[in-house]
Amino acid sequence: MHHLNPVEIIRKKRDGGVLNKEEILYFISAYLDGYIEDYQMSALLMAVYFQGINEEETKAFTEAFINSGETIDLSFIKKPKIDKHSTGGVGDKTSIILAPLIACFDVVVPMMSGRGLGHTGGTLDKLESIPGFKVHVSPKEFKEILTEINVCMIGQTDELVKADRKIYALRDVTATVENIGLITASIVSKKIAEGAEGIVYDVKIGQGANLQGYERSKALAQSLLKVTRDFGKKSIAVLTDMHEPLGYAIGNWVEIHECINIMNPETGKSRLSDDLIEVTLALAGAMLFLAGKCRSIKEGIPMAQEKLYNGDCYNKFLELVKKQGGDVSVIKNPIKYRKINSIEKFVSDKDGYISTFNAMKFGKAAVALGCGRKKITDNIDYSAGIILKKKPGDKVKAGDEICVIIAEDKNKLVHSKEFLNGAVEIGNSQIEIKSKILEIID
Amino acid sequence: MHHLNPVEIIRKKRDGGVLNKEEILYFISAYLDGYIEDYQMSALLMAVYFQGINEEETKAFTEAFINSGETIDLSFIKKPKIDKHSTGGVGDKTSIILAPLIACFDVVVPMMSGRGLGHTGGTLDKLESIPGFKVHVSPKEFKEILTEINVCMIGQTDELVKADRKIYALRDVTATVENIGLITASIVSKKIAEGAEGIVYDVKIGQGANLQGYERSKALAQSLLKVTRDFGKKSIAVLTDMHEPLGYAIGNWVEIHECINIMNPETGKSRLSDDLIEVTLALAGAMLFLAGKCRSIKEGIPMAQEKLYNGDCYNKFLELVKKQGGDVSVIKNPIKYRKINSIEKFVSDKDGYISTFNAMKFGKAAVALGCGRKKITDNIDYSAGIILKKKPGDKVKAGDEICVIIAEDKNKLVHSKEFLNGAVEIGNSQIEIKSKILEIID
Repeated sequence: MHHLNPVEIIRKKRDGGVLNKEEILYFISAYLDGYIEDYQMSALLMAVYFQGINEEETKAFTEAFINSGETIDLSFIKKPKIDKHSTGGVGDKTSIILAPLIACFDVVVPMMSGRGLGHTGGTLDKLESIPGFKVHVSPKEFKEILTEINVCMIGQTDELVKADRKIYALRDVTATVENIGLITASIVSKKIAEGAEGIVYDVKIGQGANLQGYERSKALAQSLLKVTRDFGKKSIAVLTDMHEPLGYAIGNWVEIHECINIMNPETGKSRLSDDLIEVTLALAGAMLFLAGKCRSIKEGIPMAQEKLYNGDCYNKFLELVKKQGGDVSVIKNPIKYRKINSIEKFVSDKDGYISTFNAMKFGKAAVALGCGRKKITDNIDYSAGIILKKKPGDKVKAGDEICVIIAEDKNKLVHSKEFLNGAVEIGNSQIEIKSKILEIID
Repeated sequence: MHHLNPVEIIRKKRDGGVLNKEEILYFISAYLDGYIEDYQMSALLMAVYFQGINEEETKAFTEAFINSGETIDLSFIKKPKIDKHSTGGVGDKTSIILAPLIACFDVVVPMMSGRGLGHTGGTLDKLESIPGFKVHVSPKEFKEILTEINVCMIGQTDELVKADRKIYALRDVTATVENIGLITASIVSKKIAEGAEGIVYDVKIGQGANLQGYERSKALAQSLLKVTRDFGKKSIAVLTDMHEPLGYAIGNWVEIHECINIMNPETGKSRLSDDLIEVTLALAGAMLFLAGKCRSIKEGIPMAQEKLYNGDCYNKFLELVKKQGGDVSVIKNPIKYRKINSIEKFVSDKDGYISTFNAMKFGKAAVALGCGRKKITDNIDYSAGIILKKKPGDKVKAGDEICVIIAEDKNKLVHSKEFLNGAVEIGNSQIEIKSKILEIID
């Protein structure tokens, strides 16, 4: 492919041309081999940002990413292999519940997750707040754990989708993340490489989402579905509301704690996280449907609900934590774990009804506390977080607690509170609580 | 300026924002210092390609380029200091004549030129085809030569406009050259840094030009004028036709030879290069007007013509060549210099009138012969070139010579001839010969 010229390929895309498969595969493999430099890749990415890539080009990017590293072959496991991917939100902890829940149905969940990104949290960071929990396991161990307990939750290994890893890091520092084609290729390539046969996409919509605007999120959902199907895999997209944080907890350990409260039948009685449970069960229904365990998403929801409430999901989660090296005692007794150094209450300044929590502001406040990273080398404070004491629609009086902020560090607390200015709106009349499930595309 | 974030600056431009001066100066100085990487600069350049930069932003880029290196202070010379810049064409050798010509009027010409770029030739390469001619002189020598003979023709030194040099090299390999604002900043910064007080811009229009389209070339001319004036310098733009090669010779030594033929009063009688002379004299008139030597461009043209034809210009050229280390004997006796190894005649296949020579194709054919570089490390073949034997409007019979190709290397000759396919059009009726001066903007 020596006749291909990187500058001509950049120019072609810059001028609105459609790159053919050979050009895309060449550009990405030559980049990985060091023949094409970072500065040429970033110029191409910016041209793609402006001109877009069509379905065929997106497919070629996806294929190039998959071929750039190892792939995990799970065909020896004779069970459906279903995963879920979220485009990222604030307080979005559905994976923690979904992975063990779906595994209860003899469905394999080979879940490969990411770290916190921008104002949104990451499943890996949440899992690592459990002492001892290992998110880095070899492909061999991954297969063994999946064979034994149907579920394993890991981070992307260095060997998978190498080109995506290298390009993603570059997009992050060159303002070229927000392109539907590139987002699609990045997501789908990972899911195909990890061995999933069916994928449910939770596409977030609202101010707390990574991509803004209903139409753009819907376009992303459709792109994810098309490209996943181009690779012969089944998929469903669920568009969910991310104007407000999901559930009550935002952080790492606090989110695990919220999930334990839901899964453990002893504490699960006081199930306050209605929105979180609604989204989790809808995604569970979709996963069970893709797994062939029910005839519709709707039929899957009560099936999932039963195993969430009867303790099966909780027991599977304990099994998972143990298998991946985590300390099960903290799961069984979460209240005793994580000493809280500094707590600040955020109270209402007037009477009324909560109309909104701005998810973006809460997300940024959580990152400022140390729940996420501003740069890759930042340390995570696993115990820090924000606990909502109210949700939109709730009645408040002046002086009532709206949320509490848990912080290790006083300075971080002060910085975090700045983001919460204007994050909560209180109105005179009660708002209508709407479903978090906005649309299902299958 | 530590509060400025490179990614936010890229995003701002990407989203169509106007960068303020502080952001532009920071981005460029941090790039030169290595705090901002090539891949972030190339992403910004591609965003600029799509979103453009306005006059204020262009001025800030220009200022950043000027401040990134040394500047030459010629204020100690109490004469007008006027330069000319061409946007680049095929067979464009006006600088070789203009520099000594204007110097005859006690006007200082501090001419700093570039090398061949793409299909267009470079004044430096042409000068270096004169044995011994030194285009790299120190700022001290540059000032001394200007003081003594009013003219010096040099290459850009490593010390001037450092940021422009680094960014230009990056633009070349990332398909981000063709932006009017960036082209303006690159050109104007060099001219200001070299100490010129007035600059005449020769903006080429046509298939042989580096920028395509009349409107875009005119927009470039206007941008050059505005930004030059923003820095308190005088300027005029002359829009000239570059659909066909200028003059009869395309190459390096062959172009010097054509200029000698025009300047030397003994050979100058047979002045065939009407188009070249027309453009040269118009630019000369504009330079003399900026120097305050005449009351209009029109008045300056016959003044320049006189000194071109009476031998003054030729003698000044001999002085210049000698001063810069060149061998004056080859100028005096050019026919004896450069043995020609291989000549190929390109003949007409039918009777008729020449309607066009495609300048782009002739330019590419010349580069293929070794007159220019495809990459920076390529060697130039100084003797290679193409000599036109006819010009548009000329009558031809089948078998008549249209041009001859001079080549060192048989393989290059074959490759070069491929570019000439369809480069010459022969019609049934004689075309009208139009002026090469399309528009003057002052």
